[in-house]
Amino acid sequence: MSNLADTILKPVIKVRQGQFLQEDDVIVTEYPLTIFLNDEEFATVVCTPTNLEELVIGFLASEGAIRSYDEIKQVSIDTEQGFAYVDLQKQTQLQQSFYSKRRITSCCGKSRQSFYFFSDARTARPVQTSLKIGVAQCLRLMEQLQSASVIHQTTGGVHNAALCTPEQVELQYADIGRHNALDKIYGYCLRHQLHTADKLLVFSGRLSSEVLLKAAKIGCGILISKSAPTELALQLAEELNITAIGFVRNENMNIYTHPDRIAEYAAKKVGS
Amino acid sequence: MSNLADTILKPVIKVRQGQFLQEDDVIVTEYPLTIFLNDEEFATVVCTPTNLEELVIGFLASEGAIRSYDEIKQVSIDTEQGFAYVDLQKQTQLQQSFYSKRRITSCCGKSRQSFYFFSDARTARPVQTSLKIGVAQCLRLMEQLQSASVIHQTTGGVHNAALCTPEQVELQYADIGRHNALDKIYGYCLRHQLHTADKLLVFSGRLSSEVLLKAAKIGCGILISKSAPTELALQLAEELNITAIGFVRNENMNIYTHPDRIAEYAAKKVGS
Repeated sequence: MSNLADTILKPVIKVRQGQFLQEDDVIVTEYPLTIFLNDEEFATVVCTPTNLEELVIGFLASEGAIRSYDEIKQVSIDTEQGFAYVDLQKQTQLQQSFYSKRRITSCCGKSRQSFYFFSDARTARPVQTSLKIGVAQCLRLMEQLQSASVIHQTTGGVHNAALCTPEQVELQYADIGRHNALDKIYGYCLRHQLHTADKLLVFSGRLSSEVLLKAAKIGCGILISKSAPTELALQLAEELNITAIGFVRNENMNIYTHPDRIAEYAAKKVGS
Repeated sequence: MSNLADTILKPVIKVRQGQFLQEDDVIVTEYPLTIFLNDEEFATVVCTPTNLEELVIGFLASEGAIRSYDEIKQVSIDTEQGFAYVDLQKQTQLQQSFYSKRRITSCCGKSRQSFYFFSDARTARPVQTSLKIGVAQCLRLMEQLQSASVIHQTTGGVHNAALCTPEQVELQYADIGRHNALDKIYGYCLRHQLHTADKLLVFSGRLSSEVLLKAAKIGCGILISKSAPTELALQLAEELNITAIGFVRNENMNIYTHPDRIAEYAAKKVGS
């Protein structure tokens, strides 16, 4: 098995005390592993590519597909393709339909890493927007997101997501599931046919590939988060024309992709 | 639609500067909502029970089942049962097998809230253990979990999980997915037939129902977390005989269930 990196160095524009600093930062990788059980596609797990055999065995047991290690004849992992092949001693007993099964299709003709899930390929397109935002506005929106969420303050158990103009929060939802918080925003936008190209998303959770795909579907070209991004999310942000900003906290933030939508950065480039 | 509570008050044993204080605390609820699409079961979303219509619409769009709100004829939600019925204008176009589908079955003959997923009913059983641990040991293990994780410190983008004795960390994994980190531990335990009843789990992520089910399957009767629990997780902890401890940080922690496994608490009860 070849070694996979669990992190990667990427150039990042760090905003520190209002200054833009170009530096390399360590970004966590996000690796899709498709598990085949007795040659049938079983599930795709998106993970950190370490200890993949343990992950596969534990996942199969968690899902109820095996009860003990004895039931496994062989596990082999093709790290290049991102495929895990598991042969069981017996034929699979449980019906396929009990399990989550997703199809991966390649995107934009690039490497396999830049994948979309099957259903995403139909709906996630690069975002077209002329929206710009200032650094102070980003910081203030994140502060508002957190301070407006009573449920977050009393329980510490939810994620928050908001649809905002650069000036203010327009719509905010909380949920124990970070994807749910974004789905609530998406649902509201669809239902009320909200125009989203002039709005941005402010989010408490980490930026994974799925979050980026949701932002593209919602139609927002700027996504700011209190937390860390994954490398696959940043690849998607690049392709989907989304400005991805992370670690918005303590008056600082990191700009990962498409920085020209940050007003001061764009002005500085023009000026220099 | 009847109103569902997004939080609930629960008695908690708070450990503050080594003292045990019995207080009520606000706990976030965790609500399973099963979505039927044209009368066929589509998926179960575990969520905060607010803005459920938005959630359902956004989820269906995220999954690629709809592209616009026009495609929906009607959404009706039975909050008592936790069912959402969506009628589309057309017959469902996508194959069922593309979607995650899980079955819910009731557990222990109690209310529907105490549910297990279908596959869990076969494998999650109440944990039998005589393990005890001290407060200082809990705090030290959590500190060790965080400080041993270089990837966490450099990226801020992973969750950590460890299998420990009260004295030390035996096994530790990081992953961008909190469930994956636990699955890696589960996989290792199965593969090496590790005895787990004398060990506990230390975890950076929130305690949701799925995390409790995994702890039960792994066979650990004590689960300590840096973060918040959900109410459904605490119901399961009660039933599965697991000591659930949350918010282990800054020398403090909250004990939610089965506190007699905390040595000082048990001693105090005997002494009083």
